[in-house]
Amino acid sequence: MMYFQQKHAQKFMDKYKDRARLLISCPDQPGIVAAVTTFLYEQGANIVESSQYSTDPEGGTFFLRIEFDAPNISERKEEMERKFATIAQRFSMKWRLSLHTHIKKVAIFVSKEEHCLLELLWEWQAGELLADFALVISNHEQMRETVESFGIPYYYIPVTKETKQEAEEKQIQLLKEHDIDVIVLARYMQILSSRFVATFPMQIINIHHSFLPAFIGARPYEQAYRRGVKLIGATSHYVTDDLDEGPIIEQDVERVDHKHHVEDLKRIGRMIEKTVLVRALKWHLEDRVIVHENKTIVFK
Amino acid sequence: MMYFQQKHAQKFMDKYKDRARLLISCPDQPGIVAAVTTFLYEQGANIVESSQYSTDPEGGTFFLRIEFDAPNISERKEEMERKFATIAQRFSMKWRLSLHTHIKKVAIFVSKEEHCLLELLWEWQAGELLADFALVISNHEQMRETVESFGIPYYYIPVTKETKQEAEEKQIQLLKEHDIDVIVLARYMQILSSRFVATFPMQIINIHHSFLPAFIGARPYEQAYRRGVKLIGATSHYVTDDLDEGPIIEQDVERVDHKHHVEDLKRIGRMIEKTVLVRALKWHLEDRVIVHENKTIVFK
Amino acid sequence: MMYFQQKHAQKFMDKYKDRARLLISCPDQPGIVAAVTTFLYEQGANIVESSQYSTDPEGGTFFLRIEFDAPNISERKEEMERKFATIAQRFSMKWRLSLHTHIKKVAIFVSKEEHCLLELLWEWQAGELLADFALVISNHEQMRETVESFGIPYYYIPVTKETKQEAEEKQIQLLKEHDIDVIVLARYMQILSSRFVATFPMQIINIHHSFLPAFIGARPYEQAYRRGVKLIGATSHYVTDDLDEGPIIEQDVERVDHKHHVEDLKRIGRMIEKTVLVRALKWHLEDRVIVHENKTIVFK
Amino acid sequence: MMYFQQKHAQKFMDKYKDRARLLISCPDQPGIVAAVTTFLYEQGANIVESSQYSTDPEGGTFFLRIEFDAPNISERKEEMERKFATIAQRFSMKWRLSLHTHIKKVAIFVSKEEHCLLELLWEWQAGELLADFALVISNHEQMRETVESFGIPYYYIPVTKETKQEAEEKQIQLLKEHDIDVIVLARYMQILSSRFVATFPMQIINIHHSFLPAFIGARPYEQAYRRGVKLIGATSHYVTDDLDEGPIIEQDVERVDHKHHVEDLKRIGRMIEKTVLVRALKWHLEDRVIVHENKTIVFK
Repeated sequence: MMYFQQKHAQKFMDKYKDRARLLISCPDQPGIVAAVTTFLYEQGANIVESSQYSTDPEGGTFFLRIEFDAPNISERKEEMERKFATIAQRFSMKWRLSLHTHIKKVAIFVSKEEHCLLELLWEWQAGELLADFALVISNHEQMRETVESFGIPYYYIPVTKETKQEAEEKQIQLLKEHDIDVIVLARYMQILSSRFVATFPMQIINIHHSFLPAFIGARPYEQAYRRGVKLIGATSHYVTDDLDEGPIIEQDVERVDHKHHVEDLKRIGRMIEKTVLVRALKWHLEDRVIVHENKTIVFK
Repeated sequence: MMYFQQKHAQKFMDKYKDRARLLISCPDQPGIVAAVTTFLYEQGANIVESSQYSTDPEGGTFFLRIEFDAPNISERKEEMERKFATIAQRFSMKWRLSLHTHIKKVAIFVSKEEHCLLELLWEWQAGELLADFALVISNHEQMRETVESFGIPYYYIPVTKETKQEAEEKQIQLLKEHDIDVIVLARYMQILSSRFVATFPMQIINIHHSFLPAFIGARPYEQAYRRGVKLIGATSHYVTDDLDEGPIIEQDVERVDHKHHVEDLKRIGRMIEKTVLVRALKWHLEDRVIVHENKTIVFK
Repeated sequence: MMYFQQKHAQKFMDKYKDRARLLISCPDQPGIVAAVTTFLYEQGANIVESSQYSTDPEGGTFFLRIEFDAPNISERKEEMERKFATIAQRFSMKWRLSLHTHIKKVAIFVSKEEHCLLELLWEWQAGELLADFALVISNHEQMRETVESFGIPYYYIPVTKETKQEAEEKQIQLLKEHDIDVIVLARYMQILSSRFVATFPMQIINIHHSFLPAFIGARPYEQAYRRGVKLIGATSHYVTDDLDEGPIIEQDVERVDHKHHVEDLKRIGRMIEKTVLVRALKWHLEDRVIVHENKTIVFK
Repeated sequence: MMYFQQKHAQKFMDKYKDRARLLISCPDQPGIVAAVTTFLYEQGANIVESSQYSTDPEGGTFFLRIEFDAPNISERKEEMERKFATIAQRFSMKWRLSLHTHIKKVAIFVSKEEHCLLELLWEWQAGELLADFALVISNHEQMRETVESFGIPYYYIPVTKETKQEAEEKQIQLLKEHDIDVIVLARYMQILSSRFVATFPMQIINIHHSFLPAFIGARPYEQAYRRGVKLIGATSHYVTDDLDEGPIIEQDVERVDHKHHVEDLKRIGRMIEKTVLVRALKWHLEDRVIVHENKTIVFK
């Protein structure tokens, strides 16, 4: 099964066959960049993009993301990892090497509102989201036709208070079967259990329809309307056990005024939600987001 | 005492000697605009700007702001008001007619942070804020020299827990003596008593250093930093008895990211605060802000 | 043939059956608003939105747009127009009364780039664009399947230097047959003849892929890249005989930097183009755009 | 003479006494970053910020900016430079090592409009611009009092067609005497001669009152008004021999509409101009701007 759009796929694979990315975090100390870049140089790699950040040069945590081109990287990956392990140990690194051509497998969860799902599908179809949309799971039937018209399997798993645990088990089973890397909650209106969340740590991306932490909880646009705010927003974040409190990946706002009724706020909000969600997912797919404590470092 | 900058004052007075503005709110019903504009036409007035808003055409509240030119309006104001009273009664209007050349008297309250105060003074000096900055009141001495260099009296009124009531009485007395129309809290770090607030209803404008209702309360930039938000903001609002809960006049935000430490957020925040406060005050000075329930209608 | 999406159509028709809008332009003088609103009041109309603008209260041109609810307006429209004619004559008005439920017929012209076409179709499908997309005309075959899947007829009319006149005649014939109100050039890469443009004055909306008047002409993103600009934009405008010089309806920009290559500028540009075009068309469909000299007044 | 504000200066000097920055450009090839960071590591330096960019990993130009802390850097600078020369030669680098505490000497040129000058002075006074404002040169007398009140010398050098060459000679002499690093044209309304420009290559920063390349030339706001644009902007760029064609450092825009007359566009424009100019100068002062061909790379 190859859901990644055929027309973009081959071109992409050819263009980036030599490209990989190295993600590192470790206690900050002098010499890290020197060691890593010297290693890459010795491996015949040419750095094409490099971003770094230290929470505090004196005793903080250091983060590094390097994109590089190295001939035949897909064949040499394991060897390179084995060699790099020595450096990693020396600096107590958490690290990961991944091929640019390894396309992440994505599951989309959706309920009744279609705008985020559609935006994801359209951006994917246009080649802007390099993902393998492996399946869509919904607690409603209504989006089946749309989803299947994109060649993506659609699983209807109804959720009630009573069946919730069972439903989640089915979901988890499907996600495991499809070997899913990341789950996108595209306006999925069910709260996931702690157990579900713990199964996919920092792998679940949600779109919250407010500028968090303003208007936490239900009906944020109604809350925003009553409070008379002059800007409304949306927030995409990783899902943790604390509802609406996970690490924020991206936020944006639009200006509103007294003329906007709740329905207008919702309409404008939908625009922001879908834009923000696509941006967050795109960065996640490209390994640009690192979670540190309850915050994200985004190497755009 | 004439604090309104001399160089801009005369030009302004000449240009707008015929201009006035009429502000109206009343239960919505057909015929209001027809009655008001027919009246103005009969009075020889030429409408130059008109804004209206209805919370709901069926049984809501209707708001109207009309700027017009009428020859010799300053002499005819009382007569016009007397005549308009009949129409006002017919539609159960709350209303106000004011001369464009009536410059509002403003008191600025400030503590130790100077950025908002300075921005107000600079914009005033540049002729962007048509106000009479009648006095500055502070619980610290340090801004005296700056303020007095603009020719504005500076009153140092220290505030402690014990002297708070007494201090507020002194403040109120000064405000009454100077016949103050509006009080601007330009980063004034004391909480005003209910009694003080009740003395100047919807006449006190505050700048809050966060995108309300996010980060209500103390140290919002520290809160924003810990939460890892991707945008920070500021909010200008009327002061009511509920701290940080008064009607919002204006808000704005700037993008931040993981590289910004608390000090950076504060620096960027200061830029937003001063911009937002000046905008809110400007609209208030031009009678463009109407409070309805706990929200504002801003006829920009 | 009814292309306006069925699910939104009926709801819309029911909700707005009493609504109409009156558009007026005339030499400015006192009494216009009084006369118009008194007339509407006498006709039992309730104003729900009103916008006005005068290029100069002394001898300029006055523009007025009023949305109102009047019972049975669709049956009374002609009678109301007859009665209003007297007032119109008195003030030398150009004017137009139209029903809110009169959905405009739109033709989309497209070449090979699909992003603008798709955005129009999606926004239309989502009920955001209240239009009757009557047909798509293209000088290429490739978008046929997509367009027809939305139930919209697709006409392939190839254009070469030799066949251009003949092609335009076919186009005009189709547009007349379908009684088209507005033509949207959604990245249609052919220059229309003076004759074609004159046949549909201020009825053709184009999207230009630059922030006009910067980078007039061909390959604007390449030009922008070479010049090293820090923002790129798009412009939607009415088509006149002067290429890229017609009245601007809407523009927007996005920030770019040195890291963006021409391909990135194009990708970001596509986002701006589709957003700007949808906004411009939406305002046109709601009769919010008035052309005066070579500029637009947009009553948002 | 020490014009850099005393209160900020000492704090700054203490905080950053160990900090330096290394700027490099050279033909791209593998191993550059490894060589540079290994060198810095061996010198006991700790990297606090690092930015890099390659126009093309295959045969393009590579740019690197590294900020690092190294104990006693001010005393070891020459030694470090001598040692680095070997690496620089190996990679054919153009490079520069500078101390973070080396405050650049700035000359401001101004004519009659004060907004940009004032913004520079205020931001400098607030400690946001780490510069030594060594002198102001003007072809008018009127800003003398303001400038001197900041403790900055003011030189009045009138310019007429006849005296232009002589005036420029005086200016150049003053700039050399004060050992000026960068010249800011803060709305200086005289065109500099090729000779003057050649004397200070990429050291002259101008603010142009339009979103270049739109509205090149005189009276851009009048041009913008006539064209009916929906956004107006400002551009800060290095001055080269081609008027308005030098490398762009920063641009920004604000939304305008039909209600804005030329005077409004100018007022809004002034806000954008001063903001954009301060941003561009700040980046230049921190060695964040690199000119390549006719474009800038800005390492924000």
